[in-house]
Amino acid sequence: MKATGIVVEYNPFHNGHKLHLNKARELTQADVVIAVMSGSFVQRGEPAIIPKWERAKMALSAGVDMVVELPVSFATQHATIFAEEAVRILDAIHIDTLFFGSEHGVAEDFTFAAKKVVENEARFDEAIQLALVDKKTSYARAYTEAFKKLFGQNLLDITKPNNILGFHYALAVQKQNPSISLQTIPREHAGYHDEEASHDQIASATAIRKLILAGKLEEASHYLPASSIDILRNYEGPFLSWTDYWSFLQYRLIQASTEELEGIRGVSEGIQNRMQQAATKAQNFSDFIELTKTKRYSNARLQRTALQILLNAKSKASSPYIRILGMNKTGQKYLSLHKKNISLPIVTTVSKAPPGLLEEELRATNIYTLVKKLENYQAGDFHIPPILTL
Amino acid sequence: MKATGIVVEYNPFHNGHKLHLNKARELTQADVVIAVMSGSFVQRGEPAIIPKWERAKMALSAGVDMVVELPVSFATQHATIFAEEAVRILDAIHIDTLFFGSEHGVAEDFTFAAKKVVENEARFDEAIQLALVDKKTSYARAYTEAFKKLFGQNLLDITKPNNILGFHYALAVQKQNPSISLQTIPREHAGYHDEEASHDQIASATAIRKLILAGKLEEASHYLPASSIDILRNYEGPFLSWTDYWSFLQYRLIQASTEELEGIRGVSEGIQNRMQQAATKAQNFSDFIELTKTKRYSNARLQRTALQILLNAKSKASSPYIRILGMNKTGQKYLSLHKKNISLPIVTTVSKAPPGLLEEELRATNIYTLVKKLENYQAGDFHIPPILTL
Repeated sequence: MKATGIVVEYNPFHNGHKLHLNKARELTQADVVIAVMSGSFVQRGEPAIIPKWERAKMALSAGVDMVVELPVSFATQHATIFAEEAVRILDAIHIDTLFFGSEHGVAEDFTFAAKKVVENEARFDEAIQLALVDKKTSYARAYTEAFKKLFGQNLLDITKPNNILGFHYALAVQKQNPSISLQTIPREHAGYHDEEASHDQIASATAIRKLILAGKLEEASHYLPASSIDILRNYEGPFLSWTDYWSFLQYRLIQASTEELEGIRGVSEGIQNRMQQAATKAQNFSDFIELTKTKRYSNARLQRTALQILLNAKSKASSPYIRILGMNKTGQKYLSLHKKNISLPIVTTVSKAPPGLLEEELRATNIYTLVKKLENYQAGDFHIPPILTL
Repeated sequence: MKATGIVVEYNPFHNGHKLHLNKARELTQADVVIAVMSGSFVQRGEPAIIPKWERAKMALSAGVDMVVELPVSFATQHATIFAEEAVRILDAIHIDTLFFGSEHGVAEDFTFAAKKVVENEARFDEAIQLALVDKKTSYARAYTEAFKKLFGQNLLDITKPNNILGFHYALAVQKQNPSISLQTIPREHAGYHDEEASHDQIASATAIRKLILAGKLEEASHYLPASSIDILRNYEGPFLSWTDYWSFLQYRLIQASTEELEGIRGVSEGIQNRMQQAATKAQNFSDFIELTKTKRYSNARLQRTALQILLNAKSKASSPYIRILGMNKTGQKYLSLHKKNISLPIVTTVSKAPPGLLEEELRATNIYTLVKKLENYQAGDFHIPPILTL
C-alpha cells in the first residue's frame, strides 16, 4: 500500500484542508493517507478550538485514513521540533511520500535547501548565533538572516509561514530518512495568517476560528465541508481560546517562584520575570502578551512559552510514540500490515501504554478540560477509545 | 500605657467579637487593645470572606486600637504555630495581658496546663508519636489523647475549639515570656462551629458567613454591629469562599508533579497523591475534601494543606514581622512610644520593607485577588496604606 503522510492541525478542518487532502491522495497516488495532527494545544501556542477527538472525526469524515496525535510536547514547539517529530512519526509508520502545502510550491527546491543546510550545518549554526548577539533579534529572524546570508536570497523564501514549515519537513526528512519523497502544492486561496475570511469558499483557519469564537458559526460554515459543519453542530462543548485559560496562566505565574519557572521548556533569558510582572497587571491574555513582548520574542514564541508554563512542561524532552486517535478500515488494514515493523511504541489504548510515556499528554488533556462543559472529555485519554470508522 | 493583646480573625467582625473586645478592655483595664488578625486567608484553611483591609476597618470602627496582620504563613497553620506566632508578635510589641475567649473560662488552669506541658515536653512528644503509630489517628486526636494520658481527664478539655487555642496561647506565653498575664472569659452565646445562627444577637462567624454567602446580608446583620454592617454595605467586591478558588486549586493539583508538591508546607505521607487524584474527579471544593479525607486527616488539616498548595507555600518557615494594617490615635501613640524597643521589623509601608520579607504575603494577596471584582485590592499590599483613624 502506497502511504502518504501529511502534518496537520485541522483547527478546524476546512475547505482548504479538504482540497489539500484530495490533492495529497491524487498527486501521490496514495492508497492510504496518514495525518499527524496536533492534539489539545497547537503549534502557535494556544488551545485548539475544539477537542482533538472532534478534529480527528472531522479528518476521518473528510477522507483521512489514519490520524496520529503529535504529542503535545512537540506539537506546541517551534517549527524545527514540530517538523522533526512529525516526520519521526511518519517515518516510523513507513510513509512513502510526505505531502505539504507551501507558498513556494516546488518540492525539489525544499530538498535542495535542506541538503545545503545539512552540508553546512556548523557554519549555519554559527551564523545564527552571530545574528542572535544583537539582543533585539528574534530567533526566527536570526534563522532567516543566516539562511539568506549562506544560501542567497533566491533559494527559498523561508519568511513565508508554510515555506518555513515545509523547509523543516524537508530538513527532517534529509536527516532522518532521505528516501521519503517530498511533494508540495502551492497554497493559492488563503494566507495562513489572514484574519478576515475571503469571499469564496476558502478561508484561513485563523479567520474561521475568529468567526466561530464570535458566535458566527453560520458564516464560518461557508468555509467548511459538510462533515465539519455536522460535527461542529453536534459538538456540545465550548469553543476554546486562550480566554478560557488566561486565569489559570495568571494564577500559575503568580503562584510560582521565578526559580521554579526556570526549568520550563522555552524559558530563557529571564523572560519569566517579564511574564510574572505582566501577570499581576494584565486583565486578559492579549493584554498580557502586549505587556510581555519585546523585539527578541515574537508573539508566537511568547504564546508558546506561556503555554509551556500553563502546562508545567519541563525542559526535558518526551519520548516519541505513535498514538492513534482514529482510523478507517484502510488505516486499520495499513496498521495491521506494518505494526510489526514500527519502531516506536504504538498506543491505541492509553491505559495499556508504558507507564509515564504519555504523562505530558494526559496532563495537557486534564488542563485543557478544566474549562466548564468539557466534562465529557475529562480524562478522555483514558475513556475515549480511538475512533474507528468504515 | 497598659496594653492588652487579642488574637482574632474577624471573619467578619460580629456582635460576639464586640462583646469580647469590650470585655478585654474593661477586665484588663487596657489603655490600648492590639489585635493580631489573620489576613487574606484564615486558620481553618480558607479565604477570608472579605479582604483584610475591610476587616481591619471593622476592627478599628469597633474600638480596636491597632490591627497587626498575622503573616499568612502562620495564620493558616494548625493551632500550635498560629498561637506561637501570634504571641511572638504580641510579645514583641510589649503587651501586658493576653486576653482570649474560651469554653473553660479560668485563666489559671490554662497557665497550669501549659506549665505541665513545658515541664514534661519530651514525655508529651513521645506520647503523641506513640498515638500516631496508628495510621488512623489524626494529629489533633493524638495530641488530645497524649494530653489526657499525661495530665488526666480534668485538667482542661482541649477538645473544645477555643480551649485548644487558649491552651496554645498559654503554652506560647510560657515558652516565650511568662511575664505576660493571661485573662479569659467563658464564651457563652455561640459555639465556634455552630452552623445555624441562634435567635438573639449573637451567632458564630461560621453561621454569619453562611448567611452572607447565601445572599442573606439583611439576616446576617442581626448579628453584626452597625459599624460592620456599614462596611459590608459599602464593600463592592464579592464575598469569598473556597468556591472562588477551587478551579485554581484543581488546576494547581493537575499541573504539578507529585514531587513538586512534596516540598509544600503540610504535605506528608503522600497526601498529595490523594489530592491529585481527587482533583481530576471532584466538581467542587467540598466534593474534593470528601474524596480526599481519611481518618488520619481532619477536614481542617486537609483544607489547610490544600491552601498551602494553592499558595505554593514552601516548608521553610517565614521570618516574623509586625505589619500594621491599621491604627487609631491611641494605637499610633502606643507605637511611637514603643517602636524603638520592638525587636521585630515593623512594616507600615510594604515597599520599604526588607526585600523578600513579605514575599509570601504578597503572593497570597495576589492569589486572593485573582477573583473578579477584586481589582481594587490587586497588589493592595503595595498601594493600600495602613488605615489611620481618630
